[in-house]
Amino acid sequence: MDSRIKELAEILVDHSTKVSKGDNVLIQYADDGADLAAEIHKECSRRGANTLILVTPVEVAKCYYDVTPEAYIRNFPSHYYALVKSSDVIISIRSEKNTKAFSSTDSKRISRRTIAIKKIGDERLRKRWCLVQYPTSSYAQDAEMSLTEYENFVYSAMLRDWKSEGTKMRKLKKLFDSSKEVHILGEESDLTLSIAGRTTIVDDGTHNMPGGELFTAPLEGSAEGRIYFNLPAVVFGKEVQDVRLEFEKGLIVDYSAGKNNVLLKAMVETDKGSHRLGELGIGMNWGITRFTKNILLDEKIGGTIHLAIGQSYKECGGRNRSAIHWDMIKTLKPGRIELDGKTVQENGRFKADLR
Amino acid sequence: MDSRIKELAEILVDHSTKVSKGDNVLIQYADDGADLAAEIHKECSRRGANTLILVTPVEVAKCYYDVTPEAYIRNFPSHYYALVKSSDVIISIRSEKNTKAFSSTDSKRISRRTIAIKKIGDERLRKRWCLVQYPTSSYAQDAEMSLTEYENFVYSAMLRDWKSEGTKMRKLKKLFDSSKEVHILGEESDLTLSIAGRTTIVDDGTHNMPGGELFTAPLEGSAEGRIYFNLPAVVFGKEVQDVRLEFEKGLIVDYSAGKNNVLLKAMVETDKGSHRLGELGIGMNWGITRFTKNILLDEKIGGTIHLAIGQSYKECGGRNRSAIHWDMIKTLKPGRIELDGKTVQENGRFKADLR
Repeated sequence: MDSRIKELAEILVDHSTKVSKGDNVLIQYADDGADLAAEIHKECSRRGANTLILVTPVEVAKCYYDVTPEAYIRNFPSHYYALVKSSDVIISIRSEKNTKAFSSTDSKRISRRTIAIKKIGDERLRKRWCLVQYPTSSYAQDAEMSLTEYENFVYSAMLRDWKSEGTKMRKLKKLFDSSKEVHILGEESDLTLSIAGRTTIVDDGTHNMPGGELFTAPLEGSAEGRIYFNLPAVVFGKEVQDVRLEFEKGLIVDYSAGKNNVLLKAMVETDKGSHRLGELGIGMNWGITRFTKNILLDEKIGGTIHLAIGQSYKECGGRNRSAIHWDMIKTLKPGRIELDGKTVQENGRFKADLR
Repeated sequence: MDSRIKELAEILVDHSTKVSKGDNVLIQYADDGADLAAEIHKECSRRGANTLILVTPVEVAKCYYDVTPEAYIRNFPSHYYALVKSSDVIISIRSEKNTKAFSSTDSKRISRRTIAIKKIGDERLRKRWCLVQYPTSSYAQDAEMSLTEYENFVYSAMLRDWKSEGTKMRKLKKLFDSSKEVHILGEESDLTLSIAGRTTIVDDGTHNMPGGELFTAPLEGSAEGRIYFNLPAVVFGKEVQDVRLEFEKGLIVDYSAGKNNVLLKAMVETDKGSHRLGELGIGMNWGITRFTKNILLDEKIGGTIHLAIGQSYKECGGRNRSAIHWDMIKTLKPGRIELDGKTVQENGRFKADLR
């Protein structure tokens, strides 16, 4: 077995979810990653936890939508709810062997199902949970790498000294929490946002693996100016390139894309909330060095920022409600971030006291 | 995909467990059989059921015993209990890729664990449950066949007209239920048992797949005479050959084995209840034509009987209690079964009106 799997399992069990004796642990995976699931199971057993492994192959999940009669798509799986409710820790391994399997599935059907089982999703968030990326050939393909290259890439992002990373990120969090205005300057970009009174959250590998992100919810009416996203925004497996947004009093007043403008329009016009920002995120994982069309990793690229349109996080104090939450990423080379007029990051590099 | 998997999935869903809309279905498997699990999931989804797949690889299950500290071996997995309790249907697929993986595991540790989670086992039996054999290379190896041969063998035993098989078996059940004395005659065998007032149960593929068995609990003090088992009795993956038992007033008064006599002794001397019979079973699956060291199939070989020492089934009216229930199988060629002095089966063939 790849020794990195053992190392990752230990991080997930000890750092991310703090498994201890008597804990009820639920591990979930899709296709690949049985070796990681087995290793997590082993580490949990060592610590006296009770562990179950639930598997949902992507073909099975896709087929569910193909064959389930419409009348039953809103059925509530109460056994699944009971399982989640009585679990203490949930570790979900992203390991589909095909990231495009749902391409032909009616997204409204997926959305009806998601709403019908929302109570389960909400319950999961009350647990000690972590979502972890497993290096599969399908994700390697999206990243345009060989599997071996992709494994090296993903493990570099995950096998970090999370304690020390957390300390660094909490330094920046403190600064954000005590600041009022964020100013983002860069290529075709000059945007100001207020974060006054909002809470900034650090992901030091607790809920996401890889972690390495700082995020908050901008005040709903505060965004002013324009921004150009120099990395593609991905939604439903499709890329929207060269997105440009312009804001007045928090509202998107103009937008355009270099490719897939129709999709950008559909997203922005989803509902009232999709015309406003739901998130400002700061990528702080310096192990992630390239864009791979996987938001779990892309949003954490060290030296990038991301903004999401739509739903904001209540934990941050956000009040924007929307059916969507769509992240768009921008590198700040060249560029800078100012907090209350003071530069904290320039050309993707934090000031010395924040490194 | 092997079209027999689809056929089997339909039998399991419609005949064995009668899945219908709104049912909470739990599928469990070990290593192989992901294709069968997927097909069952699909058929359940078609019928509007909610389906989860739990996987317990044999290496993971074995490792659990290797690494769990003794203090935690009795921990109760309450999330597993909650899942089972809120399920309506449980389909368990026997598909370990190694049937001997637990050979070095302390059986006392397994037994302590089994007792600690007995409440879950009991709860399972309250559901619509079915245990199904999947043709794996490991089981083929035990059967001394190639995988292709073993697949043909197992599917012949499973893909039967269970409605018509059930009708035939219930005819014999009626006769058993109204009879008092069973007399088994054969090679070095002459044994009488009373079944007066006891209930005979038919497995027509409901709880076991393959099904094809009729079983009851003999009166605890009734066995008189001797029996020679001309097929090996298997326990913990070990074979005990040429078992001979002698009974007086229901008690084993003498026993011997041609090979592994020490193991036979350990089993018989387990506790008080292991000195008495717990089951009389009649194999009625004519698709199973040979002995393969797998009790799920062996006990159903058409033309055989089996007796178990130890624990008896309460549902049959049995009162014998023991930590063991060990099945031993005998072909009745030559031989016969008499019910209240009337021959019902001779040389492995039922009388014409019972066929």
